[in-house]
Amino acid sequence: MPDAVSDLSARFRAVRAHSEALAAPLSAEDQQLQAMPDASPTKWHLAHTSWFFEAVVLAPHAPGFRPYDERWARLFNSYYESLGPRHPRPQRGLLSRPSLDEVLAWRRVVDAGVCTFIAEADADTRAAAFPLVELGLQHEQQHQELMQTDILAALALNPLAPAAFPGEPPPWPAAVDGWLGFDGGEAEIGHAGTGFAFDNETPRHRVRLEAHEIARRLVSNAEYQAFVDDGGYRRAALWLSDGWAVVSAQGWTGPLYWREDGTEFTPHGPRPRAPQAPVRHLSYYEAAAYAEWAGARLPTEAEWEHAAGSATPPSQCFGALWQWTRSSYEPYPRYRPWAGAVGEYNGKFMVGQIVLRGSSFATPPGHARASYRNFFPPGVRWQFSGLRLARDA
Amino acid sequence: MPDAVSDLSARFRAVRAHSEALAAPLSAEDQQLQAMPDASPTKWHLAHTSWFFEAVVLAPHAPGFRPYDERWARLFNSYYESLGPRHPRPQRGLLSRPSLDEVLAWRRVVDAGVCTFIAEADADTRAAAFPLVELGLQHEQQHQELMQTDILAALALNPLAPAAFPGEPPPWPAAVDGWLGFDGGEAEIGHAGTGFAFDNETPRHRVRLEAHEIARRLVSNAEYQAFVDDGGYRRAALWLSDGWAVVSAQGWTGPLYWREDGTEFTPHGPRPRAPQAPVRHLSYYEAAAYAEWAGARLPTEAEWEHAAGSATPPSQCFGALWQWTRSSYEPYPRYRPWAGAVGEYNGKFMVGQIVLRGSSFATPPGHARASYRNFFPPGVRWQFSGLRLARDA
Amino acid sequence: MPDAVSDLSARFRAVRAHSEALAAPLSAEDQQLQAMPDASPTKWHLAHTSWFFEAVVLAPHAPGFRPYDERWARLFNSYYESLGPRHPRPQRGLLSRPSLDEVLAWRRVVDAGVCTFIAEADADTRAAAFPLVELGLQHEQQHQELMQTDILAALALNPLAPAAFPGEPPPWPAAVDGWLGFDGGEAEIGHAGTGFAFDNETPRHRVRLEAHEIARRLVSNAEYQAFVDDGGYRRAALWLSDGWAVVSAQGWTGPLYWREDGTEFTPHGPRPRAPQAPVRHLSYYEAAAYAEWAGARLPTEAEWEHAAGSATPPSQCFGALWQWTRSSYEPYPRYRPWAGAVGEYNGKFMVGQIVLRGSSFATPPGHARASYRNFFPPGVRWQFSGLRLARDA
Amino acid sequence: MPDAVSDLSARFRAVRAHSEALAAPLSAEDQQLQAMPDASPTKWHLAHTSWFFEAVVLAPHAPGFRPYDERWARLFNSYYESLGPRHPRPQRGLLSRPSLDEVLAWRRVVDAGVCTFIAEADADTRAAAFPLVELGLQHEQQHQELMQTDILAALALNPLAPAAFPGEPPPWPAAVDGWLGFDGGEAEIGHAGTGFAFDNETPRHRVRLEAHEIARRLVSNAEYQAFVDDGGYRRAALWLSDGWAVVSAQGWTGPLYWREDGTEFTPHGPRPRAPQAPVRHLSYYEAAAYAEWAGARLPTEAEWEHAAGSATPPSQCFGALWQWTRSSYEPYPRYRPWAGAVGEYNGKFMVGQIVLRGSSFATPPGHARASYRNFFPPGVRWQFSGLRLARDA
Ligand SMILES: [Fe+3]
Ligand SMILES: [Fe+3]
Ligand SMILES: [Fe+3]
Ligand SMILES: [Fe+3]
Repeated sequence: MPDAVSDLSARFRAVRAHSEALAAPLSAEDQQLQAMPDASPTKWHLAHTSWFFEAVVLAPHAPGFRPYDERWARLFNSYYESLGPRHPRPQRGLLSRPSLDEVLAWRRVVDAGVCTFIAEADADTRAAAFPLVELGLQHEQQHQELMQTDILAALALNPLAPAAFPGEPPPWPAAVDGWLGFDGGEAEIGHAGTGFAFDNETPRHRVRLEAHEIARRLVSNAEYQAFVDDGGYRRAALWLSDGWAVVSAQGWTGPLYWREDGTEFTPHGPRPRAPQAPVRHLSYYEAAAYAEWAGARLPTEAEWEHAAGSATPPSQCFGALWQWTRSSYEPYPRYRPWAGAVGEYNGKFMVGQIVLRGSSFATPPGHARASYRNFFPPGVRWQFSGLRLARDA
Repeated sequence: MPDAVSDLSARFRAVRAHSEALAAPLSAEDQQLQAMPDASPTKWHLAHTSWFFEAVVLAPHAPGFRPYDERWARLFNSYYESLGPRHPRPQRGLLSRPSLDEVLAWRRVVDAGVCTFIAEADADTRAAAFPLVELGLQHEQQHQELMQTDILAALALNPLAPAAFPGEPPPWPAAVDGWLGFDGGEAEIGHAGTGFAFDNETPRHRVRLEAHEIARRLVSNAEYQAFVDDGGYRRAALWLSDGWAVVSAQGWTGPLYWREDGTEFTPHGPRPRAPQAPVRHLSYYEAAAYAEWAGARLPTEAEWEHAAGSATPPSQCFGALWQWTRSSYEPYPRYRPWAGAVGEYNGKFMVGQIVLRGSSFATPPGHARASYRNFFPPGVRWQFSGLRLARDA
Repeated sequence: MPDAVSDLSARFRAVRAHSEALAAPLSAEDQQLQAMPDASPTKWHLAHTSWFFEAVVLAPHAPGFRPYDERWARLFNSYYESLGPRHPRPQRGLLSRPSLDEVLAWRRVVDAGVCTFIAEADADTRAAAFPLVELGLQHEQQHQELMQTDILAALALNPLAPAAFPGEPPPWPAAVDGWLGFDGGEAEIGHAGTGFAFDNETPRHRVRLEAHEIARRLVSNAEYQAFVDDGGYRRAALWLSDGWAVVSAQGWTGPLYWREDGTEFTPHGPRPRAPQAPVRHLSYYEAAAYAEWAGARLPTEAEWEHAAGSATPPSQCFGALWQWTRSSYEPYPRYRPWAGAVGEYNGKFMVGQIVLRGSSFATPPGHARASYRNFFPPGVRWQFSGLRLARDA
Repeated sequence: MPDAVSDLSARFRAVRAHSEALAAPLSAEDQQLQAMPDASPTKWHLAHTSWFFEAVVLAPHAPGFRPYDERWARLFNSYYESLGPRHPRPQRGLLSRPSLDEVLAWRRVVDAGVCTFIAEADADTRAAAFPLVELGLQHEQQHQELMQTDILAALALNPLAPAAFPGEPPPWPAAVDGWLGFDGGEAEIGHAGTGFAFDNETPRHRVRLEAHEIARRLVSNAEYQAFVDDGGYRRAALWLSDGWAVVSAQGWTGPLYWREDGTEFTPHGPRPRAPQAPVRHLSYYEAAAYAEWAGARLPTEAEWEHAAGSATPPSQCFGALWQWTRSSYEPYPRYRPWAGAVGEYNGKFMVGQIVLRGSSFATPPGHARASYRNFFPPGVRWQFSGLRLARDA
């Protein structure tokens, strides 16, 4: 068996198992919760990631493939127009059937199907389909994080404030105070090399940077509390116009999961807000208002990537929280979406969204990299999002 | 043990057991579904009816009573302002905790508590509290029907069109064609006697009726199909103004659960529409438009009750479908709501609703009577609602 | 010239002139204001009432009739489905063309056309069409009141609080304290006789009344202030469920046009609230909550009409404010809508509305009568609406 | 009198007069129309631009200044949080008072006040305030274009399709076919020099461009018609995800003002669509979908500015239509908003918007320049917006 086959096979089993391990502490009832149209039930994530392997890998490449249940594509196709009609997104929480047990049984069948496919693929098939298997795994890792953000959003709406997971939150990556300075000039950003990257990270290209400084760590709960205490949510002058409109309409007075008793709601239930921990569950609007209040700004995504890829990168780039940049999510010069159905993966979302960089405590190890581009609309708060400051030098 | 005690105790056990028997074919996932803000999850119904016994019977009348979990009142209080704050109705489907198992365990505790309470009550307590126990049972029976309408509404949104319950729908009560005539004059309606009735059925009072005829049976699927085929949903002249606005905005083309393949969606899954079966899942708007098309009208609630209580009542008054009347839901002359928290049971809803009379195949046997007043807003279609014609004589 | 002709002709001129006299103090800009979808611009009222004569009288009955501008029917048809498509109601305020001057010129042409038609009609035409001319005049009188409610609603949204009309409000009809008692028994309500009445007032028919008392006057500002001061808008127990939902969602704290400085906004601008004047601009929800607080109830429409038609009627029945009843707007027994297009005048609105009785200071003299049925949805407050109490005897 | 004074004075009179000349063909009724929350009435534009001179120039800099009517600031302040509370934007069309005549009288007073202020200013005041006078004029010129887009949007909702202005549309700037090529490398964009520019055009800074081509002219009606005929509005694959959602929800089938009879609605009423004229009233979504269909893309704003500033610029850069770029509206490196209230002019809108470049036929001559940045949300279509293609080289 070639290394490529055994490696991919092992990786496939590990990633798939991790999804189920994440879901294991949750009941079938928990796994059906959908907090809002933008979030999905745990069970739906487990099913959708399986559908992805069926639709993107097996259907086009495995001879004689038959879907487990052909009616399910409609239920678990997320947004691929080219792959057929879809159940309305806001009603994913209304799918009591198939049951969790049926979805898990389906996962077993898909697992076997993909493993057999990997093992038996000839060279041509390997070349054509193994990148799609890898994409399916990267995709499933993305959903592993969403499983955590989405269940948190759902349980937060239960007055009992139940914990999604037992135990305690992981410790934060160590923080280093101060600023890192960078000269102006030309730099390169974007993915290069042979490892996996999403199409939106390519091509690597030159950008012009101005001299600037970037904070060595994320903004902390204590710092953000000072902003709140200073009337941050009541001073229109600090906010972007759209942000102020949301603050006023929604009555925001602090980060999404801050509670009046001084705790914040976490995947492990309510917990005291550690003063030195990075503040989280912020929208872009809040991140930008804080930066304005602090006499600074958010970094551009190019500045962020340049710093993260430097010889002495700032602390807390990865494994803490996704970090809002001031950059809108746009195609890189000469960007081309992937061919085929997966061309819908990233490119069609390149309007109305802001780039976040880094990774969070909930991102699977090995998934992120300096060129990784996460993106959400500016009002989104249910992700594991924080902020790092920058300033002109 | 006095008969009143043993009778009530037996009845209590039977009614409570029936709720659980109804829910038994449904998975915990099914039992969490909430199709829309006006409908509730099965599990919520099971919990709410238990809360009702805690809040209305045990808390005021059982010495030393302690609620099973004091945090749950907020979750399962439906609309009683005097009994404290409430979880938002549209979010009842987001309560994965307490789990179904916990709710069922709670039911066991409430069952034991009420049975002990019944057995140990002294005479004064019996006088004060047994009517409330009976109210709790009548209340639970109402929710037994809602459990069926609500799960149907939820499963109807699943593209798989799953059946809530195994087996086949019950046969319809036999139908008799033609019209029954009534002279004009004074009549009495409203509840009298010593049996249970809701406050809204009282007091019995005199009304003036004009000479009229009332149909001996409900309008059938075949008859309603003729209305549809005759352009019923495209002819504004047949509709009340508000009804036409809904037809146009929602794109209605037939009863709620009619499907393009000639079937209708039922608690047993899609089934062919039997031509002679009463048409169901109609709004008041549709019932009124059909009557207009048929050159007739809907009966008033007084006409309906007068006919149902006559020596030779029409067929299909009970056990088929709730029957829209042309009467708005208003207080009877000298109506007084019950004292205490249960004063919120009926009276505060006496605006914006239309009276339905009779009972449906899903109404627990023995629950309804000729004076019974059901009520829903005129656009509601997810109830087991049909229509019976009337006309001036 | 027969009396019927000269009388109708004179009455036509008088009613038409009154509409324009009402509008005269308002600028063309004022006359274009539309406060909300349910209200219409003054100019639109002037045009719509002219269209009514064209569409209902001249088009079917005047030989050789040609509309002034055939494109305008679409603009000024209010809700008659049988008379063709309609400009969307919420966009009536966006019709700067035709200009006010053009509308007034059109009125001159319609005036001449109708007067000629009246003068030249033969006996058959008189029989067929004169009742429609009379209906057109009654219709225009209804719009004369709406012109006043609608401009008030529009100017109330201008922070300058401008007066619609110069001068001072008219004095209130004299008030008499106390209650009038009525025995139970059979009574008759509804229009009888040869004078004009709308179809919804017919046929006259027998009703059964229970013994009751009805207040001799309307509730005053001072009395309503006491309700407000007693926490009336903060006590859920006083409100119908739908009413409480509106109070909570809209943040109501008093009648529509009460201002924090102790004034209320009137057609003559802000004015101090006279303590003894009837409280106005109430919704049905507020009227019902006040009655609950006062230990009374609202009268039924039959009780109201019976009292107003009695030998010693209560004061302030007419010329003060429309008076909410507890009766939903339903067809009388054996009600038949008028034939033809005007069958849409009243009947199709008989759901979701509450009956108001009497008339207001803004109702044209001679327009109302004891059998008159006004109707609006229960949340409406921009009409000249107040309340009179009743109670069981 | 120094040249600076006489020049500014003359320019002030000319710009102010142009606003009134634009409004002159419109009636007071026309000038009160507000098509939607994002558009404003003509009268409001005339008033708001006067308020701007009062609030930004005279109030801070003219000794003894008193506002014409202090209650009007609330009505005509657009969005300056630091300058006090504001009348709700969606209700600007409900301000019949002050009347158009009053607003025009106010303009006379403001004109006199500013002219006196200019003439009497000492050197310090000139230095401090003349740039604000110039800003007020640039501001008024921006509103001159909005007066035209906004009245067009309002009249388009009138079924009579009335013309805002007499006469015929101006001819289009001459078009040249083909592409202009540019090498990759470093370029500079942003405003430099001493002429007026908005803060958002600064500072001039270096950017990195890749080799590309840019179309010599705008896309024409004929070309866009081919896109429509090829199913452009029915093929999800061509659209950004947000764009497809809007197309589906709103039922778009062509540019905003295209009519079924082959005409388009223009400020001069419906006119045939000239095949070679640039297609207009497109959203960003439509521009991007067309580019995708055409195998091209939209230019970045840097590419556009670089081409427009080159020795042989493309045709139709100015005076035809605003041109969507693919660039989100973000701050330039080291951007600083102006000091004081006018700091709210541009900076707070730098999220959720897309940059348009160039100018339109409705832009006042001399107002635009190569570095000018216009911006609107991606779904906006009521502006005079078209598109120019670009492609990678
Ligand atoms: Fe996915
Ligand atoms: Fe209940
Ligand atoms: Fe009318
Ligand atoms: Fe402005």
